Amino acid sequence: MAIKVGINGYGTIGKRVADAVAMQKDMKLVGVTAHSYSFNTEAAKQKGYKIFAVSDESENELKANGIKPDGNFQNLLDEVDVIVDAAPRKIGKENIGAFYKPNKIKAIVQGGEKHETTGVSFVAQCNYDKAVNKDFVRVVSCNTTGLCRTLDAVNKKYGITSVHATMIRRGADPWDIYHGPINAIVPVLEMPSHHGPDVQSVLHDVEIFTTALSVPSTLMHLHSVIADIKKKPNVDDVIEMFRSTTRVRVVRNAEHLRSTAEIMEFARDMGRLRGDMPEICVWQEAVGLTSNAHNKLLYMQAVHQESDVIPENIDCIRAMMGFKDGLKSIKMTNETFGIK
Amino acid sequence: MAIKVGINGYGTIGKRVADAVAMQKDMKLVGVTAHSYSFNTEAAKQKGYKIFAVSDESENELKANGIKPDGNFQNLLDEVDVIVDAAPRKIGKENIGAFYKPNKIKAIVQGGEKHETTGVSFVAQCNYDKAVNKDFVRVVSCNTTGLCRTLDAVNKKYGITSVHATMIRRGADPWDIYHGPINAIVPVLEMPSHHGPDVQSVLHDVEIFTTALSVPSTLMHLHSVIADIKKKPNVDDVIEMFRSTTRVRVVRNAEHLRSTAEIMEFARDMGRLRGDMPEICVWQEAVGLTSNAHNKLLYMQAVHQESDVIPENIDCIRAMMGFKDGLKSIKMTNETFGIK
Amino acid sequence: MAIKVGINGYGTIGKRVADAVAMQKDMKLVGVTAHSYSFNTEAAKQKGYKIFAVSDESENELKANGIKPDGNFQNLLDEVDVIVDAAPRKIGKENIGAFYKPNKIKAIVQGGEKHETTGVSFVAQCNYDKAVNKDFVRVVSCNTTGLCRTLDAVNKKYGITSVHATMIRRGADPWDIYHGPINAIVPVLEMPSHHGPDVQSVLHDVEIFTTALSVPSTLMHLHSVIADIKKKPNVDDVIEMFRSTTRVRVVRNAEHLRSTAEIMEFARDMGRLRGDMPEICVWQEAVGLTSNAHNKLLYMQAVHQESDVIPENIDCIRAMMGFKDGLKSIKMTNETFGIK
Amino acid sequence: MAIKVGINGYGTIGKRVADAVAMQKDMKLVGVTAHSYSFNTEAAKQKGYKIFAVSDESENELKANGIKPDGNFQNLLDEVDVIVDAAPRKIGKENIGAFYKPNKIKAIVQGGEKHETTGVSFVAQCNYDKAVNKDFVRVVSCNTTGLCRTLDAVNKKYGITSVHATMIRRGADPWDIYHGPINAIVPVLEMPSHHGPDVQSVLHDVEIFTTALSVPSTLMHLHSVIADIKKKPNVDDVIEMFRSTTRVRVVRNAEHLRSTAEIMEFARDMGRLRGDMPEICVWQEAVGLTSNAHNKLLYMQAVHQESDVIPENIDCIRAMMGFKDGLKSIKMTNETFGIK
Repeated sequence: MAIKVGINGYGTIGKRVADAVAMQKDMKLVGVTAHSYSFNTEAAKQKGYKIFAVSDESENELKANGIKPDGNFQNLLDEVDVIVDAAPRKIGKENIGAFYKPNKIKAIVQGGEKHETTGVSFVAQCNYDKAVNKDFVRVVSCNTTGLCRTLDAVNKKYGITSVHATMIRRGADPWDIYHGPINAIVPVLEMPSHHGPDVQSVLHDVEIFTTALSVPSTLMHLHSVIADIKKKPNVDDVIEMFRSTTRVRVVRNAEHLRSTAEIMEFARDMGRLRGDMPEICVWQEAVGLTSNAHNKLLYMQAVHQESDVIPENIDCIRAMMGFKDGLKSIKMTNETFGIK
Repeated sequence: MAIKVGINGYGTIGKRVADAVAMQKDMKLVGVTAHSYSFNTEAAKQKGYKIFAVSDESENELKANGIKPDGNFQNLLDEVDVIVDAAPRKIGKENIGAFYKPNKIKAIVQGGEKHETTGVSFVAQCNYDKAVNKDFVRVVSCNTTGLCRTLDAVNKKYGITSVHATMIRRGADPWDIYHGPINAIVPVLEMPSHHGPDVQSVLHDVEIFTTALSVPSTLMHLHSVIADIKKKPNVDDVIEMFRSTTRVRVVRNAEHLRSTAEIMEFARDMGRLRGDMPEICVWQEAVGLTSNAHNKLLYMQAVHQESDVIPENIDCIRAMMGFKDGLKSIKMTNETFGIK
Repeated sequence: MAIKVGINGYGTIGKRVADAVAMQKDMKLVGVTAHSYSFNTEAAKQKGYKIFAVSDESENELKANGIKPDGNFQNLLDEVDVIVDAAPRKIGKENIGAFYKPNKIKAIVQGGEKHETTGVSFVAQCNYDKAVNKDFVRVVSCNTTGLCRTLDAVNKKYGITSVHATMIRRGADPWDIYHGPINAIVPVLEMPSHHGPDVQSVLHDVEIFTTALSVPSTLMHLHSVIADIKKKPNVDDVIEMFRSTTRVRVVRNAEHLRSTAEIMEFARDMGRLRGDMPEICVWQEAVGLTSNAHNKLLYMQAVHQESDVIPENIDCIRAMMGFKDGLKSIKMTNETFGIK
Repeated sequence: MAIKVGINGYGTIGKRVADAVAMQKDMKLVGVTAHSYSFNTEAAKQKGYKIFAVSDESENELKANGIKPDGNFQNLLDEVDVIVDAAPRKIGKENIGAFYKPNKIKAIVQGGEKHETTGVSFVAQCNYDKAVNKDFVRVVSCNTTGLCRTLDAVNKKYGITSVHATMIRRGADPWDIYHGPINAIVPVLEMPSHHGPDVQSVLHDVEIFTTALSVPSTLMHLHSVIADIKKKPNVDDVIEMFRSTTRVRVVRNAEHLRSTAEIMEFARDMGRLRGDMPEICVWQEAVGLTSNAHNKLLYMQAVHQESDVIPENIDCIRAMMGFKDGLKSIKMTNETFGIK
């Protein structure tokens, strides 16, 4: 019996989770909500997704543009087992109280919400078990997901004493024409930034400090990581470790994957839906170890902010619905994304 | 009997024509050439395309990266009816003389070559018939294709006296990390620019002057067009005319398609391969007519430089191989691209 | 006896007008207002400008950051003959009613206000006389100023029948980190755009239609202009005409002034304050005439949005205070800016 | 008796050193070389600098554009005590052998040359004494200068065990329209990058590892630094230390100096020539200390790649000519730049 899933909030994350749910054999996409009319809605309609208007205003706007909604928000809630809430920051928390608890449906919220909202912050390969049979779980943000995937692997193999990551963030998503900067580098003026503690909501015992800044690019974030580690491996070992970590892809200069732009082009060339790259990409030539008394591991990774959390949402749905085998869920999900 | 097609030059245009050929029921993609190893080649291999090394050096580089070529350039030439040459500017002309004529195979070259190279410059909806049974045809550049599609429609319906187009060009393709400008507007310092005469290689009787400049964006070109026309329509007529023109899409503010970025996002959302938008996009709200004695039509259109010429290459193959029904070819091609 | 000038609104325009007033022998900068504390205020203090707090809140914020205001807004109003209001759009109009009229002081507002606010829209070389002895005058926007300077010259010499200008606008000012687009071309979806009628608020008898769009650059606007003219000159005549027009600079490929970025660098190299280029820059190689029955003049010009209206504000002050010789005022102003 | 200085290579660095030399009371700018004609040369001429053609070809190009050279390269060499060579990478080394040694004149080369070229790599506040009376000295690159200024202060006060710096580099200089990336983050695929050892050419005993990447911005570099230190200060101490370090400026959120763009705007507002900011800018709110067993200091700084090395060149000239008091030289230089 397929898990019945609804999507509330049909933006960057919501629309991708909808497509991903539609691809899973053990899930059924009941429908998505629409707050207003836009090309997003038009594309959802073309794909045959059911569209539920969140208000009378929404319904009128949709109708005025030739789209007849398949129902309202309550109609959607009535039909689902679990809702993936991809509404803007803080709204997810409100929706749990206002709609999901009263309707007795499970819900996933995204990384814009606080850890305390659900008490469980999720990255499938780090802590799948914690979400099993839970009612409310938070899938962490793109940056936190990216750091957790690689740091968890490093920590398990080499033991992390302390980590510092500088996060060079894309200024806005590709479709966003309103936000800048056009020509500046903009540091986040808190030190350390909030991303470190957020990693610890998943990897409790990893000491991490983060620095963040924004740049005029729309494609991916890039993380420059330095980790004090307990064991001293050689570089080839580390590369091999990343290569064997799920949802991490080692990319190489030899392939001309020298930048975030070329990684995105590769995703387009591979025929990935929307040109997405949900794997965290670690540059082979940018893995280094300090040649001295201290054991410091350095590496750089690219994070596709639009898509890396999408497989996590899928695994999280399964866990919450009682599917206990995390490795199997990850494998099932990966296959639908074309991730090896 | 399927038309056997080879692709020489597996870059921005070549890789797209390969995918498009592979989608046509009446064509067979024999294979593509590789000059060097890169993620392009890796993606071609994943798709199962046969790869032909253009030189011993290419062969060695491919092998060193785990790809065994399926043959050399001559092997490819031996198996094809027609080659689509998407090599860099001027190489197409050389290849006709050096390879295609001696091997008695037909060839399409791209807009980087001069009109004189083939004597026929092609845009399917403007002059399909001219390419029928020809051995060598030039598919014009992205900008020329974009102008021809809309101006041909305007000219046929309202009669053009004179046109001026300002072409705001993307500075580099999305994957190109080497070219700028990062923060400047760069005019083409020739007046009028060469694009006007190039339009006339297809639309012989349209008087057109063009101005061109580059901006720090990677997504699409934008054309600002003003045409002196003989008849005086109203704006709704003009919009309806564009709406009924093939490979032209009227986009609207109401859909939040307010920029080149949002158009590209829509293409990704629709599930188009690589997020391509081969249709020329005319903004409904940017169609205007001057309210005076002179009949001047103004409009703005966006041109996806990576993909608008791809359907033209497909139709051109058919025409050159003797398929005489241009409208039918356009329809067949459109269906495979999801163009209405 | 020096004209006593105050500046209200110490942003992009206000701070430049302040510096310009301080450079004029026949003017005295009484002071500038501060709404909040920032590096702007810090720089004003370093220059020794008197700073007037617009509210108690402003005063407190300034004091908290170590700046003791020299008085409040009323104190400034009490001491000036004329105020240059460079407040945000629509506030200028409000300020006339609330402060300048009641205090019987003259005021200049900027191009963000409507023509009707003052009844006189000003570009010194086009209509200096209209501002003589007026109480309230509007100095038009950067784009309108740029178009008026060159079109007035063209119209006087060759007679304009009709003009179309495509205005490629910088997305945000250099210091503005909040506005985009980062990677898109964004058309203004009104056709024609409002800039055409605004030119006509100065050049009443020039028929003009405009198209506007924004690009990810911060430096200058670029205008692509096509004018139907009555006489048929040769290109050298036109270039010579622009060369002899005040506040217009003909720039050349031979000087490597091939882009807005290089023009800005030249301004920095010349030692211009803030690297400003108040002259409208016309590219010599981008002046063209159509070789046919129609007399169409094409040219491209760059407009430094931060500074081209500054000399206009200075001349406007003189005119409003009764200085009748426009040509002499322009010459006086130009000398202080280093404009030949 | 003034030190007679010539400048060879009149680009980004050369033109700034020329202006700086012209401002020093104890120096005389003999002239600058020109390789070709451009707006650079035009601005030099306007400033009254003597221009020396490096070849007959240069001379002809200058004459064709209305500039009569004041002599050739040998004429310049005959008149100077010291030459500041700001030629492209590797040419400086060649010029020492071909011209400066044979002509028995002293020479400074820039950071594009290797340390071995001169044996002395110079940052005034770190090792002024090493350049005293030397014939050939290398002033290190903008990034190395920036790291040396702050790390030297940290090391002297708190003792550095190990440093990691991630260097977010501007993709191209503001005037450079040819280089990208337009929309990508491009890592330097060597780990650690070459910048670390370069810092050690000045600060021999500081262990440092660096990671570098480029972004689509033209204004400044930004460094994210983490230093393992021996003592444990509090944050206010560290800020005070930076505040009292010469050629370092502490900038604050309260001043709205939140980005590289606003720092550059502040430099323009202060009336700095070309809008330069030769001081390294450390963000007050981005200084942090880890709250744990390890003593780790984190900070972020902005580096104006066009100008931070200019005061170093001036001090280096004095040192090489025998002026022994480094502190006094730094003070003299700072005063002419308006650095407190």
